[in-house]
Amino acid sequence: MVTPTPADKFTFGLWTIGYNGTDPFGGPTRPALDVVHAVEKLAELGAYGLTFHDDDLFTFGSTDAERQNQIDRLKQVLADTGLVVPMVTTNLFSPPVFKDGGFTSNDRSVRRYALRKVLRQIDLGAELGAKTLVMWGGREGAEYDAAKDIRQALERYREGVNLLSEYVIDKGYDIRFAIEPKPNEPRGDILLPTVGHALAFIGSLEHPDMVGLNPEVGHEQMAGLNFAAGIAQALYHGKLFHIDLNGQRGIKYDQDLVFGHGDLHNAFALVDLLENGGPDGGQAYDGPRHFDYKPSRTEDETGVWDSAAANMRTYLLLKERAAAFRADPEVQEALQAARVAELAQPTLGVGEGYAELLADRSAFEDFDADAYFGAKGFGFVRLQQLATEHLLGAR
Amino acid sequence: MVTPTPADKFTFGLWTIGYNGTDPFGGPTRPALDVVHAVEKLAELGAYGLTFHDDDLFTFGSTDAERQNQIDRLKQVLADTGLVVPMVTTNLFSPPVFKDGGFTSNDRSVRRYALRKVLRQIDLGAELGAKTLVMWGGREGAEYDAAKDIRQALERYREGVNLLSEYVIDKGYDIRFAIEPKPNEPRGDILLPTVGHALAFIGSLEHPDMVGLNPEVGHEQMAGLNFAAGIAQALYHGKLFHIDLNGQRGIKYDQDLVFGHGDLHNAFALVDLLENGGPDGGQAYDGPRHFDYKPSRTEDETGVWDSAAANMRTYLLLKERAAAFRADPEVQEALQAARVAELAQPTLGVGEGYAELLADRSAFEDFDADAYFGAKGFGFVRLQQLATEHLLGAR
Amino acid sequence: MVTPTPADKFTFGLWTIGYNGTDPFGGPTRPALDVVHAVEKLAELGAYGLTFHDDDLFTFGSTDAERQNQIDRLKQVLADTGLVVPMVTTNLFSPPVFKDGGFTSNDRSVRRYALRKVLRQIDLGAELGAKTLVMWGGREGAEYDAAKDIRQALERYREGVNLLSEYVIDKGYDIRFAIEPKPNEPRGDILLPTVGHALAFIGSLEHPDMVGLNPEVGHEQMAGLNFAAGIAQALYHGKLFHIDLNGQRGIKYDQDLVFGHGDLHNAFALVDLLENGGPDGGQAYDGPRHFDYKPSRTEDETGVWDSAAANMRTYLLLKERAAAFRADPEVQEALQAARVAELAQPTLGVGEGYAELLADRSAFEDFDADAYFGAKGFGFVRLQQLATEHLLGAR
Amino acid sequence: MVTPTPADKFTFGLWTIGYNGTDPFGGPTRPALDVVHAVEKLAELGAYGLTFHDDDLFTFGSTDAERQNQIDRLKQVLADTGLVVPMVTTNLFSPPVFKDGGFTSNDRSVRRYALRKVLRQIDLGAELGAKTLVMWGGREGAEYDAAKDIRQALERYREGVNLLSEYVIDKGYDIRFAIEPKPNEPRGDILLPTVGHALAFIGSLEHPDMVGLNPEVGHEQMAGLNFAAGIAQALYHGKLFHIDLNGQRGIKYDQDLVFGHGDLHNAFALVDLLENGGPDGGQAYDGPRHFDYKPSRTEDETGVWDSAAANMRTYLLLKERAAAFRADPEVQEALQAARVAELAQPTLGVGEGYAELLADRSAFEDFDADAYFGAKGFGFVRLQQLATEHLLGAR
Repeated sequence: MVTPTPADKFTFGLWTIGYNGTDPFGGPTRPALDVVHAVEKLAELGAYGLTFHDDDLFTFGSTDAERQNQIDRLKQVLADTGLVVPMVTTNLFSPPVFKDGGFTSNDRSVRRYALRKVLRQIDLGAELGAKTLVMWGGREGAEYDAAKDIRQALERYREGVNLLSEYVIDKGYDIRFAIEPKPNEPRGDILLPTVGHALAFIGSLEHPDMVGLNPEVGHEQMAGLNFAAGIAQALYHGKLFHIDLNGQRGIKYDQDLVFGHGDLHNAFALVDLLENGGPDGGQAYDGPRHFDYKPSRTEDETGVWDSAAANMRTYLLLKERAAAFRADPEVQEALQAARVAELAQPTLGVGEGYAELLADRSAFEDFDADAYFGAKGFGFVRLQQLATEHLLGAR
Repeated sequence: MVTPTPADKFTFGLWTIGYNGTDPFGGPTRPALDVVHAVEKLAELGAYGLTFHDDDLFTFGSTDAERQNQIDRLKQVLADTGLVVPMVTTNLFSPPVFKDGGFTSNDRSVRRYALRKVLRQIDLGAELGAKTLVMWGGREGAEYDAAKDIRQALERYREGVNLLSEYVIDKGYDIRFAIEPKPNEPRGDILLPTVGHALAFIGSLEHPDMVGLNPEVGHEQMAGLNFAAGIAQALYHGKLFHIDLNGQRGIKYDQDLVFGHGDLHNAFALVDLLENGGPDGGQAYDGPRHFDYKPSRTEDETGVWDSAAANMRTYLLLKERAAAFRADPEVQEALQAARVAELAQPTLGVGEGYAELLADRSAFEDFDADAYFGAKGFGFVRLQQLATEHLLGAR
Repeated sequence: MVTPTPADKFTFGLWTIGYNGTDPFGGPTRPALDVVHAVEKLAELGAYGLTFHDDDLFTFGSTDAERQNQIDRLKQVLADTGLVVPMVTTNLFSPPVFKDGGFTSNDRSVRRYALRKVLRQIDLGAELGAKTLVMWGGREGAEYDAAKDIRQALERYREGVNLLSEYVIDKGYDIRFAIEPKPNEPRGDILLPTVGHALAFIGSLEHPDMVGLNPEVGHEQMAGLNFAAGIAQALYHGKLFHIDLNGQRGIKYDQDLVFGHGDLHNAFALVDLLENGGPDGGQAYDGPRHFDYKPSRTEDETGVWDSAAANMRTYLLLKERAAAFRADPEVQEALQAARVAELAQPTLGVGEGYAELLADRSAFEDFDADAYFGAKGFGFVRLQQLATEHLLGAR
Repeated sequence: MVTPTPADKFTFGLWTIGYNGTDPFGGPTRPALDVVHAVEKLAELGAYGLTFHDDDLFTFGSTDAERQNQIDRLKQVLADTGLVVPMVTTNLFSPPVFKDGGFTSNDRSVRRYALRKVLRQIDLGAELGAKTLVMWGGREGAEYDAAKDIRQALERYREGVNLLSEYVIDKGYDIRFAIEPKPNEPRGDILLPTVGHALAFIGSLEHPDMVGLNPEVGHEQMAGLNFAAGIAQALYHGKLFHIDLNGQRGIKYDQDLVFGHGDLHNAFALVDLLENGGPDGGQAYDGPRHFDYKPSRTEDETGVWDSAAANMRTYLLLKERAAAFRADPEVQEALQAARVAELAQPTLGVGEGYAELLADRSAFEDFDADAYFGAKGFGFVRLQQLATEHLLGAR
């Protein structure tokens, strides 16, 4: 079934469906989208939840009253529709004050202001029941190497996340943090540019267990990296806390296309991993399937909702195809021939250490390395063709 | 039907199925493939023809007798199987003598040698009935800007192609030339790096009608360019003389994957263009569908033939899906809504020139440019979703 | 001397120094820049001229009176400062009406409106003495292959340029057109994505002599192409009508950095080509050195003028280094050893054709191809090191 | 002084100067280089040491006697010249047996063989006094997502490194491990593709202190990442155990150019970081400056040694320029204006926690965020221009 329901846990950023079409070479092509209308439409389409930056809901510089009014309107429509807010995030990148970043601006007073802005959004997130606070540090970076002391920037980033963690602990909030890496744009180079760099940074924190990742399809692909492989490494380290689904066509500006309108092979591998990659063959990730995309600037509001629906529909189609792929006896046979499962066998035998390995002449002295020439092929191309044909719905 | 037959005009380079697995970090993983065996297997799989570089068939430095023996063996197996040789090409890139290129080596004696090598291969191509001589100038380029006078290199390239054209004309051969662009690898930057650069160069030749393109999927995608769009421009200029199909996963080294194992959306658009993009909705290109790919180095001979078959099968699957896409009434409606066909209407009316356009107040003074804000969406995302669902076999 | 004077022909787009800092993830960080102040400051810094889009000078939707007022103010400050306007261009990409492009929008009425807007800007350019009308078709493209019939788009582009050419001819304006290629951003793929594609398109026009190129450093580098090599091919075809200088750090979003703040080796090669690449060793291009860059969003107005000055200063420094490179006897010796000038010798002798080449046994039968193994090295790395040391000011 | 001496700690891989020119499209252009001759020449040029893969010194499949003979010859020439071997590494990528990798081949017997091969090379490294064993897992990866279970691959990698660590500990060797990341080539996607991914993986090991990184300039740049920034993060985590210097011109195949013949700005930033980035302004890294490059295929042996010398000379020139940059009062003033050092100030005051920050009205309620519009520019472009002029030797 490719009709979405809340059980599918599809969520959308308010900034995604609310994108007004502004880009580096043009202004808005669509008016602002009211949050109440947005939530009603998402509910109609079968979505599970909404996410937002503080400044998406109430304009930067709002009075407390304006802010509260918007919060109240959101709460009401959530109550009316049953949608939830599983994640919130903070805008530390749009206003001029953040022109050199938030947590890592060279200007200390900006860093303090940024932390305060996040603390306030954490409170709001907790109030709304959000379980995840995403941190996309899009302005944390530089265009010029001499302009930013990277090690000090990491140290300030760490100081900030440590402080936020302590706050959440002390407040008893049920919230975890998810860092969203990106290699560049809007800065020439962004701090923590990939899933790997963010994972490494998390290891240096005071409360590493509270901090994980929110990887975005397009962000890793902007560095030419394999997104599904990156997600697998995040899962390996137990750090896939949230995920941003969208589409990107190669190494270029951040496109934020509909999920599946970019690299379709990798989207298939990703859905297969999320849905069938668990230890028992079930879900490897059970959090929200969050779409962080932009309806193309060429579209009017009809196109906005068509594109929102397209994200969910493509995910569900890929889920169907991944299930069929896993169930196909010919695929199972090809996986066996390619020895994919053999990689789960430890290289060492039970109780074996280097001494035993060194003593095993069959492992080296008597091993026939030449037997791999012209033989012992892995059959990987056949396997990929089976995947391709399942993806094409041809099996 | 996704079983290939010679009517599908699928052809393979001898160097593709014959690839022994050598890459920059490792030697061969497979023995050499004999040409007779190769042709027999291709025939079995439903291919239409074989193509080759001189040095694929007879090792560089072969005696005349060795060369002739291999030619005779090839002719016999072609006669036995019914396969044809619609294209030949010349290796001006592997032996040390071509380390700075062939037609554009700084060393004049190398340039003369290169022209002689091509003339010899033209004779052989003509003898075998080939209609196309492909020129991939993979070594024509430089790593360092000061090392190569680009304008002189273009002038020497031009001199070479002019000479070859005259030879073919005088000999009365039914052969045309097809230049194959590539941006880099093995040189840091290659001359005529894209479809566009090669088209421009062709315009400068003495016999431009004899020279067209042999674009390769991966080569354009290595520059982040849209391959189907490039093919459309080549068709626009009447220059799609031959085509190299394969797969590439973004901007990186030249992968030469199986067709469809790279960017699947663009492969779909390409097959749709080739098969349904003619003026009457039929074929826009009726030449060979030539696969220039490499069976992965992990494979043994079984994987070689599996991969050869996969190329053809994926092409035929995409052809089926493209036909269904074009026939779907909902797609036709969406194309209409997106005004795709309206682009075929001239911007000017019949008999209209700039004077009439300037006099038409509805075109400017009374034109409501503001009406495009929040309205008049193009519905492009919906159209792309329909394409995606057809590609996935879901409609 | 690295102090710029008008004789250096440095020009700036009004949109460059006037860039307010808006990007896809943030609003303005600087107020608008008044044109009079801009011209006065450029004059102070030693610039030669100003260029602009219609909408840079007078906001889109201005009344005729508002428009005229801005034109008058510009004329006055030009008269006061001595600056000239050698180039103008038209904004067919910012307002919502152009969301699917101008010349190639699927919407015919938009195409007509776009042509009218350009005709109006041509009149203004002619009035101001501009010799070049640049056409950057940034919105001429698509995100999705099915959404745009590329061949029809090229045909409409051609129709438009033909019309404009006729207008200029009939009016007797001393204006030529310069197409500015770009591979992507703001569209997923843009029509005429590289120097090569635009050159090929020009060949199809009714008045090809009136149309050339305005290549931009960053635009070619966004496709991983060698900019200096592209300029060399543009010169080869006689089509370098104008040039956009800036800096880009690899394949990513369009950065528009200061010239020389990107790929410094290629900037050096470019300046060497422009300044010393003429037939007599003099200038290969004598038009404006136009900077199309953006002062970083982190800067206030001081940074705007510092960055404007930096562009000119770096150009002049590179010009100095290129002159020293050409004059260095060791470089001349290395060029000789690398046989760079030998490429200017025709491959064929005087009066030689293929028959004579075929008859020359020294060219093939007696040619010692093996002599290139382990010998006859080209010394390209040494040459590149000499270039590097000159670039570093170390020789 | 730009004449290298052993005190500069310049080292070269035997496979670098010994590269015979083979690439994906051509065979060798130079004969093999004997190790004794290689070491003698490096000594002459002022190098400090040699590094090698097992198979560089003695061909894969050598008998024990052949192997020992080569080791003895190496030892003798080291003794004769004073060169040292500070690093060794193991070839787990060239022979057919490793076609699906070493530590993470789907074939368990290959994994066991690979571990044995590394253990043997560790013994040799220890015997020769090497302090670092580099692990470049170039074949650890896949072309196709279904072919490799990434989490199991990471687990096998971990198992392997844990075993090797225990061996080194038990043997009492003074050796540490350094992982060398690479995003792709020769595999479509390689495990641990960037500095970040490898750092994260190291955190999961049993003996993380024994394992660090050997980042390579070109490998990070093949993913469009900022190399100097990656090195800064590696230093932040205390993991810069070794470094591979070379040149790369953007996102394309692995070029292995001479250091400084690629991205010169980033090379300058890197040398500045290594030489002046320590806490006291001194060296941030005191290990070998190891060149992992390839003399271009166009060169004969003269070009090999010219290119080896070029690497060292460019490093020393950049070191000079970086020192001058740091010493320039105008640079110091610009750094101050750009508040670069202010980033070293903790964001929180002494003893301050979130409670105090929340209580500080000046941090948020009374903070004037609007003051950053049109003012408070960072002067980053001016700083970059100063860096550029120092790089150009113009100050």
